[in-house]
Amino acid sequence: MLVREIGEFGLIRRLRDLVSRSDPRVTVGIGDDAAVVAYDGPIVMTTDTFVDGVHFRDDWIDRISLGYKALTASLSDVAAMGGRPGHVLVSLAIPKEERVEQIESIYRGMAEASDEFAVSVVGGDIVSTAGPLVITVTVTGVLMGAKPLRRSGAKPGDLVFVTGDVGGSAAYVRLMQTGSSFALAPIDRWQLQQRHTRPKPQIGAAEALVRCQGCTSLNDVSDGLSSELADISEASRVHLDIDSERVPILPAARRFARLAGQKPLDFALYGGEDYQLVGTVTPLAAGTLLPLMEAYGVRLTLIGRVVDGEQGVDLLSDNGRQALLPRGYDHFSTAGGNDAQ
Amino acid sequence: MLVREIGEFGLIRRLRDLVSRSDPRVTVGIGDDAAVVAYDGPIVMTTDTFVDGVHFRDDWIDRISLGYKALTASLSDVAAMGGRPGHVLVSLAIPKEERVEQIESIYRGMAEASDEFAVSVVGGDIVSTAGPLVITVTVTGVLMGAKPLRRSGAKPGDLVFVTGDVGGSAAYVRLMQTGSSFALAPIDRWQLQQRHTRPKPQIGAAEALVRCQGCTSLNDVSDGLSSELADISEASRVHLDIDSERVPILPAARRFARLAGQKPLDFALYGGEDYQLVGTVTPLAAGTLLPLMEAYGVRLTLIGRVVDGEQGVDLLSDNGRQALLPRGYDHFSTAGGNDAQ
Repeated sequence: MLVREIGEFGLIRRLRDLVSRSDPRVTVGIGDDAAVVAYDGPIVMTTDTFVDGVHFRDDWIDRISLGYKALTASLSDVAAMGGRPGHVLVSLAIPKEERVEQIESIYRGMAEASDEFAVSVVGGDIVSTAGPLVITVTVTGVLMGAKPLRRSGAKPGDLVFVTGDVGGSAAYVRLMQTGSSFALAPIDRWQLQQRHTRPKPQIGAAEALVRCQGCTSLNDVSDGLSSELADISEASRVHLDIDSERVPILPAARRFARLAGQKPLDFALYGGEDYQLVGTVTPLAAGTLLPLMEAYGVRLTLIGRVVDGEQGVDLLSDNGRQALLPRGYDHFSTAGGNDAQ
Repeated sequence: MLVREIGEFGLIRRLRDLVSRSDPRVTVGIGDDAAVVAYDGPIVMTTDTFVDGVHFRDDWIDRISLGYKALTASLSDVAAMGGRPGHVLVSLAIPKEERVEQIESIYRGMAEASDEFAVSVVGGDIVSTAGPLVITVTVTGVLMGAKPLRRSGAKPGDLVFVTGDVGGSAAYVRLMQTGSSFALAPIDRWQLQQRHTRPKPQIGAAEALVRCQGCTSLNDVSDGLSSELADISEASRVHLDIDSERVPILPAARRFARLAGQKPLDFALYGGEDYQLVGTVTPLAAGTLLPLMEAYGVRLTLIGRVVDGEQGVDLLSDNGRQALLPRGYDHFSTAGGNDAQ
């Protein structure tokens, strides 16, 4: 069935039913001029837009996962401020020939993510477009501590960490781009695909970082470590030394890199879309943080330190020290990064 | 200069400077993973998307006005809940060949509106698209009273009102569609254009409605009176009788209608984008509301009453009573409404 057969209002009714969820914080949900939601302190708010052909491709990600990922990518931004996401607005610009089932699948993925991460979709907008599908997700949430975790508080002496593993999403993109399966084990392929299509916002890790009282800067890995570390270095006006050996690259990404003749570290540094957290912590807090993270079921890896010196990031390896230049995805650069970012 | 010549991050820096504004409520503004804003009670939140060729056309609206209107249309949704808008996120999906100056103009319009209505742009997202320009504006705000003004509280005996004047925006669209200036006085043409390109969110009127304590339902006129009144009738499960003679049509729209052989009332009923408020009020509160509105500099017109009976809206005129069917813009209907909505 085409969207234009049931019309804007018919579609809104179907989508509302898909994401409806009991949430005592919501006074007014989908269906009035605006939503009304209970908050009683500072709010965290962020918005992210995903465009067909730019951020995703139908042959790389199914529509349910697309909805899941569009939502979790925005939740990740709230976590990266030390926030707990709570409520979501979804805006869709839909091609006129789009099928209702395709849009419903996106909402099924959003419903899945909203159940998993305890957020509610409370409103949105649906319009038509002559261009590709555009999804905009806005999330509000609360701060988990007294202050936000910004990018700008790193001090010399602090340690640099990253949560979970990185490089999996970029390895999947490369796998898709080459169009070859190499001799990659099905379980490895599945893991890469999961990292790309079902990213997990690190809300628990963010809570542990707030509780440890010593997290001095924080960012989520949406654009690749090189770019996120550069952000922290620039905002905090410090220099970062990163031990290349310590970067926790997903083993499946390492194995794929070997088969494909790629450098595994490049997936982590320049790939992005891992939605892990990267930041800095005081040495004192690191001691409490490691077991705390374990209690949250999150692996935390120390990958470097904050040092005196000019803004910038150096990568240390057996070959010595070299500058790590930020190279993420610029939406308007002609060079570009990934084909789909 | 093309956007791709300065890149995503160069553009963000320029736009940030354009909308930067001192606001003690903002802890973190543009430039981190998310914004952090002080609130201490329920928040109102809404999002609206505008697509080139669907919601606007470059030959009908200049880019500064486009930014102004995209922002004020969303502010209007907050006002329509009895809310005072406070903070804004802006997401743009931009064609690769877009000029920087064009995007800056949109932000200049947003800056103008944010000064005029005391809101701050605190973040957003900028991505590229192979399709038309897409603007998504999200607004948060506070409730001005203890409860939101919903669509669902109208009771038999209440009076139906509308603020300001209606029909001007739709008359301008029709004027543009015909491509003729008829013999329309320049001042009338200018007024129609202002109504279409510089809509004013009725925040003051919303505050008066909250203060009068007797506003039982509220909506903003984005889709035309017929559609907004039908919403109230449906949500409140009441019948509305509207006196066609009392609908406050902009005099310039009346004069244009006469010249163009159109029915002026049709502009008000089916046109939309007036961004006035329409709703219901108890007879007791109407007495306090009229002078209160005057104090806010807002004209309020009583146009009908809520009566017992089946859901629906009737239009009363010298020709008797006839059903007023909702006919706004459906984004996916093949019939469509305005060419640009």
